[in-house]
Amino acid sequence: MLSFNEYKQLTEPESVALIGVTSRTGKGSNNPLEVLLEWGYQGKIYPVNRRGGAILGHLAYTSVLDLPEIPDLAFICAPRDAVPELFSQCAEKGIKFVVITAQGFFDGDEQGKLMQEAILNTAASLGVRILGPNTLGVINNFNHFCASFMRFINTTSTTGILCQSGVFVVGAAHICNGIGLLIDTGNTTDIEFADLLGHLARDTRLKVINIHMESLRNGQKFMQAAKDAAVLKPVIIYKTGTSPAGSIVASSHTGSLAGEDEVFDTAFKQCDLLRVQDIEEMNDLNKIFSTFHNINGKRVGVVSISGGANIIAADACCRYGLEMAQLSKPTIDLLNELFPEWAHQGNPIDMWPAGMFHGYHHSYRLILEAFMADPQIDSVICITSSFLDEEGDFLDTTELIREVAGKNPEKPIVTWTYGGRFQDYAHKFEQDKNVVYYYSIDRAARALSALYQYHQVIKKKDSRTVSLPEHPGQTTVEKLLNDTVKDNLEQSVVYKILESYGIPMARWAKAENIDEAILLAEKIGYPVAIKVSSREIIHKSDVGGVRLNICNPQQLKDTYQDMFRNINCKWPEAKTDGVIIQEYLHRGTELLLGSKKDPQFGPVLAFGAGGIYTEVLKDVSLGIPPLTSKEIINMIEKTKVSQILAGARGMPKADFDVLINYITYLSQLVLANPSIAELDINPLMVYNDRIIALDARITLV
Amino acid sequence: MLSFNEYKQLTEPESVALIGVTSRTGKGSNNPLEVLLEWGYQGKIYPVNRRGGAILGHLAYTSVLDLPEIPDLAFICAPRDAVPELFSQCAEKGIKFVVITAQGFFDGDEQGKLMQEAILNTAASLGVRILGPNTLGVINNFNHFCASFMRFINTTSTTGILCQSGVFVVGAAHICNGIGLLIDTGNTTDIEFADLLGHLARDTRLKVINIHMESLRNGQKFMQAAKDAAVLKPVIIYKTGTSPAGSIVASSHTGSLAGEDEVFDTAFKQCDLLRVQDIEEMNDLNKIFSTFHNINGKRVGVVSISGGANIIAADACCRYGLEMAQLSKPTIDLLNELFPEWAHQGNPIDMWPAGMFHGYHHSYRLILEAFMADPQIDSVICITSSFLDEEGDFLDTTELIREVAGKNPEKPIVTWTYGGRFQDYAHKFEQDKNVVYYYSIDRAARALSALYQYHQVIKKKDSRTVSLPEHPGQTTVEKLLNDTVKDNLEQSVVYKILESYGIPMARWAKAENIDEAILLAEKIGYPVAIKVSSREIIHKSDVGGVRLNICNPQQLKDTYQDMFRNINCKWPEAKTDGVIIQEYLHRGTELLLGSKKDPQFGPVLAFGAGGIYTEVLKDVSLGIPPLTSKEIINMIEKTKVSQILAGARGMPKADFDVLINYITYLSQLVLANPSIAELDINPLMVYNDRIIALDARITLV
Repeated sequence: MLSFNEYKQLTEPESVALIGVTSRTGKGSNNPLEVLLEWGYQGKIYPVNRRGGAILGHLAYTSVLDLPEIPDLAFICAPRDAVPELFSQCAEKGIKFVVITAQGFFDGDEQGKLMQEAILNTAASLGVRILGPNTLGVINNFNHFCASFMRFINTTSTTGILCQSGVFVVGAAHICNGIGLLIDTGNTTDIEFADLLGHLARDTRLKVINIHMESLRNGQKFMQAAKDAAVLKPVIIYKTGTSPAGSIVASSHTGSLAGEDEVFDTAFKQCDLLRVQDIEEMNDLNKIFSTFHNINGKRVGVVSISGGANIIAADACCRYGLEMAQLSKPTIDLLNELFPEWAHQGNPIDMWPAGMFHGYHHSYRLILEAFMADPQIDSVICITSSFLDEEGDFLDTTELIREVAGKNPEKPIVTWTYGGRFQDYAHKFEQDKNVVYYYSIDRAARALSALYQYHQVIKKKDSRTVSLPEHPGQTTVEKLLNDTVKDNLEQSVVYKILESYGIPMARWAKAENIDEAILLAEKIGYPVAIKVSSREIIHKSDVGGVRLNICNPQQLKDTYQDMFRNINCKWPEAKTDGVIIQEYLHRGTELLLGSKKDPQFGPVLAFGAGGIYTEVLKDVSLGIPPLTSKEIINMIEKTKVSQILAGARGMPKADFDVLINYITYLSQLVLANPSIAELDINPLMVYNDRIIALDARITLV
Repeated sequence: MLSFNEYKQLTEPESVALIGVTSRTGKGSNNPLEVLLEWGYQGKIYPVNRRGGAILGHLAYTSVLDLPEIPDLAFICAPRDAVPELFSQCAEKGIKFVVITAQGFFDGDEQGKLMQEAILNTAASLGVRILGPNTLGVINNFNHFCASFMRFINTTSTTGILCQSGVFVVGAAHICNGIGLLIDTGNTTDIEFADLLGHLARDTRLKVINIHMESLRNGQKFMQAAKDAAVLKPVIIYKTGTSPAGSIVASSHTGSLAGEDEVFDTAFKQCDLLRVQDIEEMNDLNKIFSTFHNINGKRVGVVSISGGANIIAADACCRYGLEMAQLSKPTIDLLNELFPEWAHQGNPIDMWPAGMFHGYHHSYRLILEAFMADPQIDSVICITSSFLDEEGDFLDTTELIREVAGKNPEKPIVTWTYGGRFQDYAHKFEQDKNVVYYYSIDRAARALSALYQYHQVIKKKDSRTVSLPEHPGQTTVEKLLNDTVKDNLEQSVVYKILESYGIPMARWAKAENIDEAILLAEKIGYPVAIKVSSREIIHKSDVGGVRLNICNPQQLKDTYQDMFRNINCKWPEAKTDGVIIQEYLHRGTELLLGSKKDPQFGPVLAFGAGGIYTEVLKDVSLGIPPLTSKEIINMIEKTKVSQILAGARGMPKADFDVLINYITYLSQLVLANPSIAELDINPLMVYNDRIIALDARITLV
């Protein structure tokens, strides 16, 4: 994370050098000096243009080296090929923060990559921090500061934004409900989200933070910053490049891989970020978090003038995990008074029949006030009509709703209307900023659900940190790993590593020849299984290298010989060194427990259905260690196989505590030993009295 | 279906009686006469008001019986309690079509239900057809006809609408892109969608049909009408009441159950309807189908000024099954000319670097024209900016895009912009009605995908009808079913029924005592399984009534005795009549094959993972018979277990032809025998050489 002073220097600089600023001005000139002046920036501005002269009344220096002071920030707005030299001059001058706008570095050709590397080397050796390249820079509307060469329609709001594309800068009014403070990290070669997030989260002028992420360098660092920020402020995240096609485009855009979406999703969930799937959802969530601080629960009341719309509302609430509130006695009493006897009354309520008897506005007000006072209702969706032209509109309750909302700021009201004049209504509803209008009931319910989701994040605030002690088996494992070549590990080593960390294997021994095998089988007890021991043969079954359910010494002998005949025939040059003999166990519930090193996040655990079902069902959930027991339980319960473990259909119940321990041991193992690239225990067999690994493999980095 | 003349009488009446019309007029009066005059209706209007007098210059009759002729249509707009008498008068007068607007019948209290039944009885005996109750009636904008008491902002369009709620009448401008012809069937007690759909589909003035469905009486009738309509015109369907909460609200709104959503979904897919999940998706699809007739494929080109937006576009296309087009040689050549060497070029394209060198508009036009001419591109998404105020906007390409679109009407262009002035842009883009603007790229891609989906419906047009001959086993089954009491069937009867229809059971026989059992087991061959035979004991395992893997006569004897000791102890009064002896088979891939009678759609087939996995995995797909082989294959392939059947992970491959045959036989069985309420074959065991049922049960209606 940047220090607070560094952060201030970047976002509220007292002086800025605009390097390579154009002398053209006006429409289409993309002149950052013009933008900065328009914004009303009060700090010192040093235009630098190699031709000198005056630009918009400001004298331009011909080189940054000539500036009378070291500015807080330099903004290089020259074409790519001019950047390396200009950057060197900035570094030479002693400028600490440099924003680079040009495209064509890591996202360009080979030459661009070389230029980028040279710039990064200079920066590292002289302690210069870079924002970008390929960025529109920093916008701080609290400080009238805008380091962007593009003009755009600017709306000041309470939104903090971190992004990697100009879409979220110039489109902020539309997507993020405006800008309080924004930093576009562009290609993110140096300054990254984790450097900034904590500061935005602590900025009391901001109510909500947006992240637009295309790629990520250091997942663990990001997660740490994100966990810290999420309990301070709602953090909305929009990750793009999630599809195979999108990922390819992303890698050409910011020059780095988008990463595996499932891992990102797991990380975001573990950090309690509010993930959105498109820009409209992003806007919807910004609107609700900018308007309301909290919600007390998930019980929704719906006041409406349409039975048909009520069905849509109930569907939408259900879809997003909200509940239809049960009305309390005083509310029901009021409804009984207002409605004709034949009419259904309850929640959601179609107030039309009441309106026919007691007047529309009068009834709407009474019902809405009763809903707002009802302790069994946590939020209200108001559905109104916008189908009448302005002149003939006798159903306009926008003012009434805003008035009631103003008196009850602690209970969120969201609204939807149907009919051609909905944009008028949207505008009216949002005038006092105490209700939020949505373009569909579905979106209204989704936003309320996000508010409720965040309410739960705040509630659980404290129980978040995990620290894993070193496992006592680590000394043994270190030795085992040091003794081995960097390669696929031999099975016996893999088994010993797991056993050292307290994950039991079915009884096994290694035999180098048939006589030894017979002796050891006697010790283990029949029936046994044998597997060829070889570092080269990874898919043992394919060469007939796994034999199960061997019942006596004679059968063992025959099978052993047959196995090696087979292997010699199919892969004569394969190096083998005997067999693993293992107790043969009947089939229990087969699990997969594994870990895979992710380029962004480090080790990622996988848990799910094992055996042949691993690939077919893809019933696997992920977790990024370290994990709390609660997080491990969540991870288990996300899978369908967990229902079998819990005893569905008369299957034996598994000992969840043991399972949690094993997952914890695995976390310790992969965190303590970064040389482990992949580890798979499959099957981990669950019986009602024990959980035991039958096979496992480890690949080193 | 209504006859064409009846349909015309309902939607283009030459004369209308407005029964119970109010004498109040103006703002808030809800006067249908006023609405009808405002609409410019040219037919004869007969106001009926028991007080008589003149309303808006029209003399009111005091009773419908006094009218000088029989009007084509009567519109009863009186409160509920007055409706029965007024309806009887309409019937007496000989009016064939009556619209009832009031609420409070099946959707109200007990009295309302009785009133409704009386009305339906009168209607049936005198041949009167009812629209409603609880309806806003019929809007025919081609004929200036509007049988609604509500005024609303009306937009004439090429959309046909069938709905069950006023939301889709008065909100049509907003939700359905306007109205061509609309019929609100309200509670749908008589005239239903199936009566109307075929006429809308054949109306050449309409380009697209919308259905808003809350409930359905006759699923098979609807499916027939829907299949017929869907090949003539795109049919968009929005089913509400899909959630448990929504379903409860729906039943109080239209007085009927919303039904099981998965069955509806299956039906809609089989009919090639375009299902949407909310009103915005409904609007999006209306826009694209109103603008474009067809699309040639799923290869999308994206012309954009933002790399970040391109990633979003690629993600969105991927999400909805579209592909990023590979550019053809002439397009690539053009890009090579326009772009600096360091810039990535391809699809999606960020044209910004080209714009810097050759001018923004010039480059945009060249690239867009090249994309439109490229035979490897089937549709284009244009992403533009709307972030500049009108005065300073040097990036406005709306006119250029519309011009190019106008020259290439056969290749759809959809657009999205980012930035605060997006609503201005939306308006500009849609001026010529040759491109469609979307509020997000996600929605743009979703709409293109629907267009492509419909393109495929049109392509396969012919291969849609299935007719299933009677299965030769039907005579036997009829006899078996006639001989049984209406109840759970005895296992031996169930097994015989399946065998009669060509679905083989594992070899079995019924024994009434142990001696008989020993004799029969010898014939079947050991190992065997035994199951208690009893119509009362449904969950046989719970009382120890199923025993597997019995290897010899002695073991059979012991097991038999132990089983009945157990049953006598756990359920002493249970009636049993011996055991079913069955060959014992080792475990193959377990399937479930079943059928359940749905209240709306009749028998619905289920196929999926069997055994203990049925409940845990819920890996089941549905089909509404009769089904084509292709539909059966789709049904199989929708499940995950189908991957195992196809030989995943070295599992034996199943004979799909045999499986398709069994599913066809099951279709024939349940269609020919409506007394079967539920039928479950579980497990249906798959081996590499045969597929065979191990157990099954049938429940009768």
